Amino acid sequence: MKEIIIIGHKTPDTDAIVTSLIFARFLQKIKKPIIGFLNFKIRVASPSPLNKETKFVLKYFKQKAPPIIKSLSDKNVFLVDHGDYEQAAPGIKKANIVGVLDHHKLGGLKTVSPIFYRAEPIGSSSTILAKMFLENNLSLKKKEAGLLLSAILSDTLKLTSPTTTTEDKKIVQFLAKISKENINKLAKKMFEVKSDITGISPDKLVATDYKEFKAGRTDFAIGVWETTSPQKIFQIKKDIFSALAKLKKKRKADFLFFALIDILEKNSTLFILGEKEKGLAEKIFKKKTKENLIFLPGVVSRKKQILPPLLKFLEKK
Amino acid sequence: MKEIIIIGHKTPDTDAIVTSLIFARFLQKIKKPIIGFLNFKIRVASPSPLNKETKFVLKYFKQKAPPIIKSLSDKNVFLVDHGDYEQAAPGIKKANIVGVLDHHKLGGLKTVSPIFYRAEPIGSSSTILAKMFLENNLSLKKKEAGLLLSAILSDTLKLTSPTTTTEDKKIVQFLAKISKENINKLAKKMFEVKSDITGISPDKLVATDYKEFKAGRTDFAIGVWETTSPQKIFQIKKDIFSALAKLKKKRKADFLFFALIDILEKNSTLFILGEKEKGLAEKIFKKKTKENLIFLPGVVSRKKQILPPLLKFLEKK
Repeated sequence: MKEIIIIGHKTPDTDAIVTSLIFARFLQKIKKPIIGFLNFKIRVASPSPLNKETKFVLKYFKQKAPPIIKSLSDKNVFLVDHGDYEQAAPGIKKANIVGVLDHHKLGGLKTVSPIFYRAEPIGSSSTILAKMFLENNLSLKKKEAGLLLSAILSDTLKLTSPTTTTEDKKIVQFLAKISKENINKLAKKMFEVKSDITGISPDKLVATDYKEFKAGRTDFAIGVWETTSPQKIFQIKKDIFSALAKLKKKRKADFLFFALIDILEKNSTLFILGEKEKGLAEKIFKKKTKENLIFLPGVVSRKKQILPPLLKFLEKK
Repeated sequence: MKEIIIIGHKTPDTDAIVTSLIFARFLQKIKKPIIGFLNFKIRVASPSPLNKETKFVLKYFKQKAPPIIKSLSDKNVFLVDHGDYEQAAPGIKKANIVGVLDHHKLGGLKTVSPIFYRAEPIGSSSTILAKMFLENNLSLKKKEAGLLLSAILSDTLKLTSPTTTTEDKKIVQFLAKISKENINKLAKKMFEVKSDITGISPDKLVATDYKEFKAGRTDFAIGVWETTSPQKIFQIKKDIFSALAKLKKKRKADFLFFALIDILEKNSTLFILGEKEKGLAEKIFKKKTKENLIFLPGVVSRKKQILPPLLKFLEKK
């Protein structure tokens, strides 16, 4: 029997993990060959260990974490919460992609046969998935709704990120009802866990929500850290810079940005690692670097506010 | 106000044109910013003149044809029935792609921002669009249902192509009811028009349903001609080969296949233009060339039966 692995992006966040887990439920419930396979075995996996927030969410809803898979080579894979080779788990270029469920930019994926692809420019992959349950008249259990709700609150910073749409807001209300969760309380707990850096080394901190991109022949990366207590990170600013320099070297990135996102105040501080980063960031954001930092009021989304102007600039070069 | 152009692939077929026209209606009816724009002007266009079958279908349902657009450069575009740069109208690389509605392979499209993408491995783009009306509880007018029905019957060769799924069959029944059309009669008329080569020069015939592809650095093309009377084409076999040679040279293709598809008998005859085509086709289909032709019983779909084995072979090289 054919096996399909449902998997999110590298260094997965709550949306990537929850969407993988609940999409597997969706496939079991729908009983239609939506991805071109009638009889297939579904397996959920993660490319790497989960972050603190995701571990908390799974524990809170009594959900087992997906196992980690080392390589996708020669596997049938369904990608969630990403749509490019750079974010995908190792071995993706030798995998057979059977489907994608995403809310990011199109990243140049190629297949030899027609596949299932569903992406929308909205707050989270989990919102799209919840919509798919509704469209197909499939019911959601209390626990499933709770997991999807957590993922949307996480990805949209409690519906405040500029990626948030009216659809996310509607779906959040719908899921809150089914899961009987209080949106504010749930988000508060998640953000507290997310902001707790106890036991996280600077090396781990900068690599936790780290994404690699490609524009022409330029390989670059953008890491972010979302927190309600940015001051804790500023206290170890020096160590963060050392960790970033190490990471940039290790991953052989042409340049690397790190944005410290203040969830409550809705702003970012960009860590400027070197001359290349400085030149780029000052041109794109029209701001001056001060003490190797650039303050960006209102900027809280890598996907919608940091990556697009950067890609546009690199394409014009 | 922002303007979005909805457009199908080059040398459009009935599915590409109908999906463009009816998707514009969908956007007017849904009143939700599904592609990230709230206030936008919708314009439907075609990259080139319509084929005989499409002209017949539009006339039959009293629908105006979309105007032809020369370049997509600097425009906001929503692509239907294709998902790669090779099939898209000129200027696509300088256009802003805001969405895709398709049922082909993923072709490596890239964007800088998140977009709407919906593709399913099913019979036609019009089936997906009909599903979207159902999912969103939007009603279809008699004429709209008739147009979608024609497009699905055209793309699935009256539900007999291997691309056909149970969903296409269900949607066809649903659309036949609303449009009050007889499926067999409508398909018969369309296939008669499609098979009528009166006034079509061999040059035009081979270029009517012609698609270009890219695998690594190899540029190639596959043209097909679907007909209920293949004998009419065999009678002008020599002229077809001359036209193919001219086309290959003009489009600078590394190789070019032309498949004459017999809709009633469910088979294809592959026209083998030169040594490169011969070597490739014999390896892939494990058949010998006879009088520059390879007979392929059961093969009626470029998308599902000709292109995938070819791409797989070229990728391994």
